[in-house]
Amino acid sequence: MKEKQEKISLEARVCPVPLAHDEKIVLGHGSGGRMTQRLIENIFYPNFENPELMQGNDAAVISKKDFERLAVSTDSHIVAPLFFPGGDIGSLAVYGTVNDLAMVGAQPRWLTAGFILEEGLKFEVLENVAQSMKLAAAAAGIKIIAGDTKVAERGNADKIFINTTGIGVIPEGREAGGANARPGDAVLISGSIGDHGIAVLAARGELAFETTIESDVAPLNGLVEAMFEVTNDIHVLRDPTRGGVATALNEIAKQSKVAIHLDETSIPIHPAVEAACEMLGFDPMYVANEGKLIAIVSTTYADEILEKMRSTKYGAEACRIGEVSTDPAGRVLMRTTIGGTRIVDVLSGELLPRIC
Amino acid sequence: MKEKQEKISLEARVCPVPLAHDEKIVLGHGSGGRMTQRLIENIFYPNFENPELMQGNDAAVISKKDFERLAVSTDSHIVAPLFFPGGDIGSLAVYGTVNDLAMVGAQPRWLTAGFILEEGLKFEVLENVAQSMKLAAAAAGIKIIAGDTKVAERGNADKIFINTTGIGVIPEGREAGGANARPGDAVLISGSIGDHGIAVLAARGELAFETTIESDVAPLNGLVEAMFEVTNDIHVLRDPTRGGVATALNEIAKQSKVAIHLDETSIPIHPAVEAACEMLGFDPMYVANEGKLIAIVSTTYADEILEKMRSTKYGAEACRIGEVSTDPAGRVLMRTTIGGTRIVDVLSGELLPRIC
Repeated sequence: MKEKQEKISLEARVCPVPLAHDEKIVLGHGSGGRMTQRLIENIFYPNFENPELMQGNDAAVISKKDFERLAVSTDSHIVAPLFFPGGDIGSLAVYGTVNDLAMVGAQPRWLTAGFILEEGLKFEVLENVAQSMKLAAAAAGIKIIAGDTKVAERGNADKIFINTTGIGVIPEGREAGGANARPGDAVLISGSIGDHGIAVLAARGELAFETTIESDVAPLNGLVEAMFEVTNDIHVLRDPTRGGVATALNEIAKQSKVAIHLDETSIPIHPAVEAACEMLGFDPMYVANEGKLIAIVSTTYADEILEKMRSTKYGAEACRIGEVSTDPAGRVLMRTTIGGTRIVDVLSGELLPRIC
Repeated sequence: MKEKQEKISLEARVCPVPLAHDEKIVLGHGSGGRMTQRLIENIFYPNFENPELMQGNDAAVISKKDFERLAVSTDSHIVAPLFFPGGDIGSLAVYGTVNDLAMVGAQPRWLTAGFILEEGLKFEVLENVAQSMKLAAAAAGIKIIAGDTKVAERGNADKIFINTTGIGVIPEGREAGGANARPGDAVLISGSIGDHGIAVLAARGELAFETTIESDVAPLNGLVEAMFEVTNDIHVLRDPTRGGVATALNEIAKQSKVAIHLDETSIPIHPAVEAACEMLGFDPMYVANEGKLIAIVSTTYADEILEKMRSTKYGAEACRIGEVSTDPAGRVLMRTTIGGTRIVDVLSGELLPRIC
């Protein structure tokens, strides 16, 4: 098979008709014919090149090496605008799925990318997004092995939507899952909350003031690997994306049938994000993150895991924000800065549409 | 893990707040919060229920049994209208990916579903699509193990877009691939061409006449299994979807560096499809199919494989339509009904937008 793959790979590189950078997407680019092929040869193959992708068949084939369990996760991305401080829809689409795989203890390996393009989109925009995906895939150590492109008429989609589906390998002994939090466990967070949501809002021009807030969009698989170096006994990992930290913790409390008690003063938040949330009337606990994780671990290992997290790039601001108890099961409570206790409920309705 | 999964599964079934059938999609259904949960509990869990899906984590976990190679394929579906004679976007989304897996000899096992919904969509429509996916998944023997839902503002998407990504297991000894056609091989097709494209066009009201043409949308994995019962020596399998039979054969001729010679009189086409194509000025060789496959096999096994195909539901009208030769490499030629020979080129531009 190796030889065949190389042949196809070479052929795919032979003389694709080059694209002019002011060319635009037309319906024919979704036809499955010559124009689709030209798009693939000019934009997707050069950016995503690997033997599995270059097989050129209806499905990519991967060979089993030495894994027992696979993780699979899918996410569609419709963020607006496509580019925002700290990231873009391409990095978001790769890291979003990479992080979902890491949250069950998996090492991300293979990724598929399904594009829905709006007629009239400039090639230059798609090229920039594909390049961003290439860099993100390299940073996360994942290969884009299959893809698909559809084009909708102008006005029936918004520029670019990207679905990514990822497959990862779970090393033996890891059992992280939302149902595994136990009374007595410590609740950790890998860094400050709310950066992504506020950065996208700022990029839309919906803030009445200037801000330097950047999205935290980042691959968390390296951080997760570092944590598992300490122990396999990590009970829950979750990345608080849409719905924010509040919603993620409520999901865990419900799945594990435990109570989660938080200490508001210990929750890290950048002053600029806090200021933006105050002006907008948002609770940062509900604002989306794209490069943070919540970990629930036995207190035995909490300090050691926290120290390890802080030694990594994306866990440098990690801290302990609460603990797990039995009562009231399924609830998240917060000791507020003024000494009271309030229920932190799940997000109801939509705070920020098209944030991811 | 088994016990935990069952617990979650039960909990997911406890008292979801029911939906009224005239309720509509609002942006909050893509928020990741309570409304998203309600959508999942009312529509997706009841239709797609299985232990992997009900894990309720960021990624579904599958366990290796006894496979060496996996096939992975992704496809986004943006067909308009959502419902057409013979199928709908739900059956199309499931079978489209099932068939892509089968075309590399894989047995489809696991499927992910990523929904992009337009604000204002009626729940009833989504429910009907989910039910169709449930039936299609059962018919194809595949499990929907992970999903995602995003909602775009009214006017930024068109009702429902669905990405499906599938994973299948390739039994040992199967090596079907587009680069494997050899001079002397026979070219087979599993049935009549062009039904899907014309059926969707009719459903759009774009035909000036009445027609009873139905889409051929169907799962082809059973047919493929039957074919491999004859021999593992099947060189190429491909389903001629967008771009039709002409484009699929051109891809194969190019990948395998061979010529493909077709006999126009032997290509099966329903009279109603032929009549519609003539009136519209379409060449049926370029019209999309969603339940047909092209097989390229050694002449040694061609008759036996053909007989086997004809014994199955979706291969009853299978026939031999041509042969592979060395010259002119990379080209598809057709002996026409009037005795001439013409080059059958790849589709350029878009014949029928949003057909799948």
